[in-house]
Amino acid sequence: MKRYRSSEVWDFEMASPASSGSADVILGLDGSASDTVCVCISAAMPSFACRLDAPLPVLSRAVSGCSNHNSVGETTARETIEKVMAEALWKAGSNRSAVRAVCLALAGVNHPSDQERTHYWLRNIFPDHVKIFVENDAVAALASGTMGKLHGCVLIAGTGTIAYGFTEDGREARAAGAGPILGDWGSGYGISARALTAIMRAHDGRGPQTLLTYEILNMVRLSSPDELIGWTYADPSWARIAKLLPAVVSCAEAGDEVANKILHDSVLELSASVKAVVQRLELCGQDGKDYFPLVMVGGVLEENDSWDIGKEVIDSITKIYPGAHPVRPKVEPAVGAALLAWNNVTRKNYVSNIETDCDMLKCF
Amino acid sequence: MKRYRSSEVWDFEMASPASSGSADVILGLDGSASDTVCVCISAAMPSFACRLDAPLPVLSRAVSGCSNHNSVGETTARETIEKVMAEALWKAGSNRSAVRAVCLALAGVNHPSDQERTHYWLRNIFPDHVKIFVENDAVAALASGTMGKLHGCVLIAGTGTIAYGFTEDGREARAAGAGPILGDWGSGYGISARALTAIMRAHDGRGPQTLLTYEILNMVRLSSPDELIGWTYADPSWARIAKLLPAVVSCAEAGDEVANKILHDSVLELSASVKAVVQRLELCGQDGKDYFPLVMVGGVLEENDSWDIGKEVIDSITKIYPGAHPVRPKVEPAVGAALLAWNNVTRKNYVSNIETDCDMLKCF
Repeated sequence: MKRYRSSEVWDFEMASPASSGSADVILGLDGSASDTVCVCISAAMPSFACRLDAPLPVLSRAVSGCSNHNSVGETTARETIEKVMAEALWKAGSNRSAVRAVCLALAGVNHPSDQERTHYWLRNIFPDHVKIFVENDAVAALASGTMGKLHGCVLIAGTGTIAYGFTEDGREARAAGAGPILGDWGSGYGISARALTAIMRAHDGRGPQTLLTYEILNMVRLSSPDELIGWTYADPSWARIAKLLPAVVSCAEAGDEVANKILHDSVLELSASVKAVVQRLELCGQDGKDYFPLVMVGGVLEENDSWDIGKEVIDSITKIYPGAHPVRPKVEPAVGAALLAWNNVTRKNYVSNIETDCDMLKCF
Repeated sequence: MKRYRSSEVWDFEMASPASSGSADVILGLDGSASDTVCVCISAAMPSFACRLDAPLPVLSRAVSGCSNHNSVGETTARETIEKVMAEALWKAGSNRSAVRAVCLALAGVNHPSDQERTHYWLRNIFPDHVKIFVENDAVAALASGTMGKLHGCVLIAGTGTIAYGFTEDGREARAAGAGPILGDWGSGYGISARALTAIMRAHDGRGPQTLLTYEILNMVRLSSPDELIGWTYADPSWARIAKLLPAVVSCAEAGDEVANKILHDSVLELSASVKAVVQRLELCGQDGKDYFPLVMVGGVLEENDSWDIGKEVIDSITKIYPGAHPVRPKVEPAVGAALLAWNNVTRKNYVSNIETDCDMLKCF
């Protein structure tokens, strides 16, 4: 594999070098299956800023495309991550010499070897004193809903989907998040791929007719279901397929039975992921009624006036676990990533479980 | 898109040019989702050679990798096709000047634009007088079971799956064959991907424990289900995933419920494809009992002592359509492709429907 290293993205540092006394900063990066967001926050942020009601000192924000190495390949993923980090620093009027910590929360980080590979690469970009954290993107998403406290369960459903949970004493568990080939059927990609399949089945006589045919062909400007085959395989990006989601929701709202079944099945899938995590971690306690935050993140779960997938999932979960407390985060996962790094670097005791279980946030 | 054209594969023609009187030949090529086979037959083959009991004058045979442009991309697909055609001619001691017709039967040919693009490219390889036919690979597979007669229904289930049928008066229909994203769940790939999904679900608590975990991890030499994620996405080839099929069959034979359900579901899927084609073409006649050949092709449908997917599909079809006559072809689909071209070029009336409906075999 070619090892990507682009020095050009850092050229701005030579053009306007930061002074030796420039304020320390922390980078938080969220790399989901559809895009990559990097924020730069002040490392000098006082601890009260982490309260739920306090404004956050986000100095800058940069956005780029997908950085899931399983989707776009490792070279493109690294190129995207490096570019977006450089842009965030440039926008903040800072540079690498001021960075105290970086937390990369990435979809596609599923195994310690994924973390180690990414860390090894990052070590060539940042000086040795910079603390580096590499996590699955779900960890930052949870932190974004709890303002840094790693407790509860997060459900992400955007292009991909994953459920991830932490107990207060630092145990963790996940469900799904293995990408479309390995059964993430409740995701935006999964819903859209099932809608495309329903069109093909209606077309060749294996399935009932559906409004999806008209709606999706119209959306992608094709005239026949046969043409969908070429369209689908011409570009392997999962995010592109997932963008068909609004057409599925719109057909379901219009009463189409096929679209309704696809969305109901996605609710079952997403709920099953949350239940698996809650059960394994016993987040609901012995009596099944303990309080825990249920953080809901991603386009599939956004509030919607009529067909609200997120609300259906919440209803399904709270019926079994009345202590589940749904949270739709007010800050984005990239800020959650930055808060995780900030908590660790400043050694505040705000997130006490970080101190007690070093496995929860692996620092390289 | 880069247009591939490799002159080197034809260098052998300069080293040993064929004499002007060298015997005319026909090339038949079958490009499935897992490999590409090209045979060279004599164009002077007497018509009786097409009888089911006569030996066929196959002069040579060459094999290469996958040439489905939806799976490996158009550049690789063309490189593979050109190489395998050159090798077949070289092995037959022939060359392009002796070719009278070429029939390419390719998985991934789903639309007239796919045919036209491939034809345009082939025109740069062969002289103008060479007749060129480009078809979906299912058409050649049907012909391989009927020795050239385009009547009945073929079911292919290897890496991918498709059902394709022709009536005696030249109408045609297909079902499935749209690749894994668009729901070819009964294929070798579909079965294997569901097995991988079952492993992930057992691992994270969403599904029951299964023997598949041990069997498949052992087969791909990994120690944990988490590692399957990297393994799956490291190589996007569908054929690689489909190779897990024997492990699924072996678990089902050992009584594993999860594996058994996956195979039973694949039987339902494959049967649904055949039924859709038979119904649309009314191959079973008004009374539902008319005779028609049901040609069964591909690794998933191969005879098996215990868990025999092909037999289950046949049982399911003949229960509804008693006139369905199952055929496991004695020649391979590449020979079927060559026979289709031979029938057309020699203008024998062996396949009468080719004469009556030019749409059945589009000659460019």
